[in-house]
Amino acid sequence: MRRFVYRVEGKGESCLERISLNQITTDRWSLEEAIDGCVRAGIPWIGLWRHKVQEAGLPGIARLIRDSGLKVSSLCRGGMFPAASRQAALRKRDDNRRAVEEAAELGAEVLVLVCGAAADRDIDSARAQVEEGIAELVPYAASHGVKLGIEPLHPMYAAERSVVVTLAQANELARRFPAEQVGVVIDAFHVWWEPELEARIRESAGRIVGFHVSDWLVPLPHMLMGRGMMGDGRIELRRMREAVEAAGYSGPIEVEIFNQAIWDQPGDEVLARIKQRYAEHV
Amino acid sequence: MRRFVYRVEGKGESCLERISLNQITTDRWSLEEAIDGCVRAGIPWIGLWRHKVQEAGLPGIARLIRDSGLKVSSLCRGGMFPAASRQAALRKRDDNRRAVEEAAELGAEVLVLVCGAAADRDIDSARAQVEEGIAELVPYAASHGVKLGIEPLHPMYAAERSVVVTLAQANELARRFPAEQVGVVIDAFHVWWEPELEARIRESAGRIVGFHVSDWLVPLPHMLMGRGMMGDGRIELRRMREAVEAAGYSGPIEVEIFNQAIWDQPGDEVLARIKQRYAEHV
Repeated sequence: MRRFVYRVEGKGESCLERISLNQITTDRWSLEEAIDGCVRAGIPWIGLWRHKVQEAGLPGIARLIRDSGLKVSSLCRGGMFPAASRQAALRKRDDNRRAVEEAAELGAEVLVLVCGAAADRDIDSARAQVEEGIAELVPYAASHGVKLGIEPLHPMYAAERSVVVTLAQANELARRFPAEQVGVVIDAFHVWWEPELEARIRESAGRIVGFHVSDWLVPLPHMLMGRGMMGDGRIELRRMREAVEAAGYSGPIEVEIFNQAIWDQPGDEVLARIKQRYAEHV
Repeated sequence: MRRFVYRVEGKGESCLERISLNQITTDRWSLEEAIDGCVRAGIPWIGLWRHKVQEAGLPGIARLIRDSGLKVSSLCRGGMFPAASRQAALRKRDDNRRAVEEAAELGAEVLVLVCGAAADRDIDSARAQVEEGIAELVPYAASHGVKLGIEPLHPMYAAERSVVVTLAQANELARRFPAEQVGVVIDAFHVWWEPELEARIRESAGRIVGFHVSDWLVPLPHMLMGRGMMGDGRIELRRMREAVEAAGYSGPIEVEIFNQAIWDQPGDEVLARIKQRYAEHV
């Protein structure tokens, strides 16, 4: 059993030193409230969403985060590359550049890429468009000091959110770019089912730029809003963390839970449960 | 555009000569009604479910099918191998042997294996149990002249129905057994998202014992009951059929649609639409 050293002040070594609140987990909180909540709870990292940053106002939030002492594990999200027209592709390119600029200003460790779905039935072309889109974005991200993290999504989202659906595929895609520029984000909910996952994680070595945890509930209450609190579902989270660490990743571990029932709970209670379950299961 | 030659009597060459009604598509029909419906519609094949066969009574149904002139493309399903106890494993073994006996008596081309989920969080052990379960079943199936078809299921069912979730994985599993005994069943709904699917289908050559079609709707109305009629969703069905044929499969093509709205329609109307969409999209 892993030790559970919980220190509110967060001084010194603690098993919570790598925990990050992905702010979608407390979706009812504004970004300011989430920052305050993390500071109160002694959670040292936060994962941000662009629409929340926008609501709060970027320059003020960047300052607020610096003042809070929190570190930004990631900004979610860029990507959504496949486009039905040249015009749409240009709009997406511009939006991705803005995402890079925001990540740089926020000091985010990584810009998470949710790669997008096909506009039609042609999944192969969509996958080619994803690669082209990343290739186009890499120099811009490099010039801003921002790393891109390809996050494979669960195949149940292949038609609507991401044609990149396995860690094997994300690894292969990432390898076409410099390791200091493009990595992979491993989200337990999305990849836990993947055959020979540990071998795939080993192949991610040197490219892992994020690790997200939640759980897969049985039955799954909802395709989008049905993620579970760690320990409530079927994922061997600790084993996955150990594999990710063995592959050399020692960065923040984001708790990212889309779940209406959790969203409806008071944020401070959610953060307390997250810390407990993280210590027990991650 | 592929020609659409529809002949009720089914004499001679017709693009419908390979179509099979998986009887779950008309779930409200008894097996007797489904047999009559196929004969009326000129559909030469039928895919059966064990609980429907049981309701109808096996020896009588076997005779009825022979008399109707229909051929049985598959019996669904054996499998569900992982077990939480030795006792449960023995019950499953016995049930799988009964499934083999039923498939033999019905003259089914193949017994479809839905491999089962882990009883706990240990997906690797569950996968090992699947392999052991198949290994144990193969000699019994061989002695009854029944082929086993490993059907990879969509990863969204990994926690509840099948730890075999990709065609790549099913191919690798099947290759551990003689090709004349163990093959793979390719269901478009389950595998359409798989990276480099055409390469995986090529690797299935000589092992393909079934091909199932339906469609992936956007948005997916329901995880279990949300499959679409061919042409209503995002799957490139014709391309997949051509890949399956290029890999040497020339057997029946089952239309298998779990969808409450379709179940609520009169069976004869469903069969008419199936034939039309099959001709247009498959």
